[in-house]
Amino acid sequence: MYTIGIDLGGTNIAAGIVDENMKIVKKASVPTPVSRGGDAIMADMAGLCKRLSQEAGIALDSISSVGVASPGTILYEEGMVERSDNLHFFRFPIVEKFRALFPVRQVFLENDANAAAYAEALCGAARGTRDSVMITLGTGLGGGIVINKKIYYGWNGGAAELGHVVIKKYGRLCNCGRHGCWEAYCSATGLIKTTEEMLEECRRLKHKTLMTDEVKKYGKVNARVAFNAMRAGDVYGRQVVELYQDYLAEGIVNLINIFQPEVLSIGGGICNEKEYLVSPDFLQRISEEQFTRDSGRKTTIRIAELGNDAGIIGAAALERNAMA
Amino acid sequence: MYTIGIDLGGTNIAAGIVDENMKIVKKASVPTPVSRGGDAIMADMAGLCKRLSQEAGIALDSISSVGVASPGTILYEEGMVERSDNLHFFRFPIVEKFRALFPVRQVFLENDANAAAYAEALCGAARGTRDSVMITLGTGLGGGIVINKKIYYGWNGGAAELGHVVIKKYGRLCNCGRHGCWEAYCSATGLIKTTEEMLEECRRLKHKTLMTDEVKKYGKVNARVAFNAMRAGDVYGRQVVELYQDYLAEGIVNLINIFQPEVLSIGGGICNEKEYLVSPDFLQRISEEQFTRDSGRKTTIRIAELGNDAGIIGAAALERNAMA
Repeated sequence: MYTIGIDLGGTNIAAGIVDENMKIVKKASVPTPVSRGGDAIMADMAGLCKRLSQEAGIALDSISSVGVASPGTILYEEGMVERSDNLHFFRFPIVEKFRALFPVRQVFLENDANAAAYAEALCGAARGTRDSVMITLGTGLGGGIVINKKIYYGWNGGAAELGHVVIKKYGRLCNCGRHGCWEAYCSATGLIKTTEEMLEECRRLKHKTLMTDEVKKYGKVNARVAFNAMRAGDVYGRQVVELYQDYLAEGIVNLINIFQPEVLSIGGGICNEKEYLVSPDFLQRISEEQFTRDSGRKTTIRIAELGNDAGIIGAAALERNAMA
Repeated sequence: MYTIGIDLGGTNIAAGIVDENMKIVKKASVPTPVSRGGDAIMADMAGLCKRLSQEAGIALDSISSVGVASPGTILYEEGMVERSDNLHFFRFPIVEKFRALFPVRQVFLENDANAAAYAEALCGAARGTRDSVMITLGTGLGGGIVINKKIYYGWNGGAAELGHVVIKKYGRLCNCGRHGCWEAYCSATGLIKTTEEMLEECRRLKHKTLMTDEVKKYGKVNARVAFNAMRAGDVYGRQVVELYQDYLAEGIVNLINIFQPEVLSIGGGICNEKEYLVSPDFLQRISEEQFTRDSGRKTTIRIAELGNDAGIIGAAALERNAMA
């Protein structure tokens, strides 16, 4: 038997047919027709699933379930997205709508960050563990929690908003309305803001920085500017990266003190910086600052392994999660 | 059948025989002989259990298990306290030592804050829930997490150190070595420090405050000084309490965004301030600031119900936890 996983994003719908070993046998994606509304999105999702099964030569009755990973808060019992600002969903009944278009025995719905964390726990950076946590350093800072080999979503489906934890009281304004959330410092958006602040400071003090050249190269300030400048020997780029790592370590130690997961994995675009982000100094600091610094068993920090496939694999595995 | 719960504290050993409805049928306590070492503590625990069963007229073969709630990090598989500075335990094998002195089928060991959270989840402020979180505002700020009706202790038994989460980067030095932990502001010790800072400020500016009279009354600054002065109309006492509530709300919203528990209960001595602590303004702020502010299902904040019995009841219920 196979399952299909759909990673429903604000830009693209990515889907894949996954076998019982959690390997993607065929995948494809189409742009998300957000402006045409929820029903158009459902139709394109169903069309993509039909195309995939035809192209892979897998009959529909060999597909036991379809899982959908969506942004937003999920109402599990209702099979609804309670709210997703990216997709303009408000109490949108994905499960019912999709099943009407694609006849499959079961349709599962999960938050996208939770699905990615589940995929990493099943067959990625946290495989073989019972309790793990994943954070995703993207435009926002998302999170997923797997406890006792099952996705943890809390009482109302909205758990694991790990970026919306204040770590600096009276700090930067966050999109959520609070001040000093971890996301405001450690998302790509937060890193860009720190980079901009440093660039402004360099301009004011008339200090030269290689970050200026990087900004010209990309035509804008992005999350790579500071890392690139640091690698070229720029002291200001290094300061931005060190400040970023400082906040990232602070938040990770917080999560370790709360969860003591066996593995904490880090996903999202900023992970492409690999050892420049997760450096030996960074790991040592986390090891020394946690409450259990003297314990014989400490959380392993790993870069996520499944990259962009995590959403598809996690969604495809939701049937397994439901049985766990 | 009955079980015995032992709440092993740095000052007292409290124990109770508990029936199948989680009611304490008989309880007693003795001072903890910390200076005489671990074996003396075990002997006094066993003596207390024998005395209780005799006085209650309950034969030893009607007692299915004894649960011990201890401070410190627990090594579950080994039945050991890995470390408790209060009790001077380091890798101390409570389960093995105690069983040699008190012949009972099963002995369970759990962290005291986890046991209290489990008791509240079973028959206290969070009864009937699946997922709940408890915080304890005592000398330190402790926590316990119950997920899927089971105590969550993480990979190494050290989870739920909810006070050791930095909420104010570069803030007050905490006992754990980090700066700005929630505990440094919201434990009784943190409240006392804030009170002392305000008293110093009043002295410096030559402002009169009723807190000075409260300090004279108690002979020292304690966690009641600011609350008492506020109730007597003192503006500086009010400022201290409002600052305390501000930090408390910040940390509680953090926990809601992470866990979305059905109930978050608040225990510990500071809870005796009841509605002066958990005021309507305080609850409204928590409701408005959480990420799920628009959700139809929101976490209920409750003062813990079991008081000093939570440790005994939670310890006595560890057999049930193990089967959950």
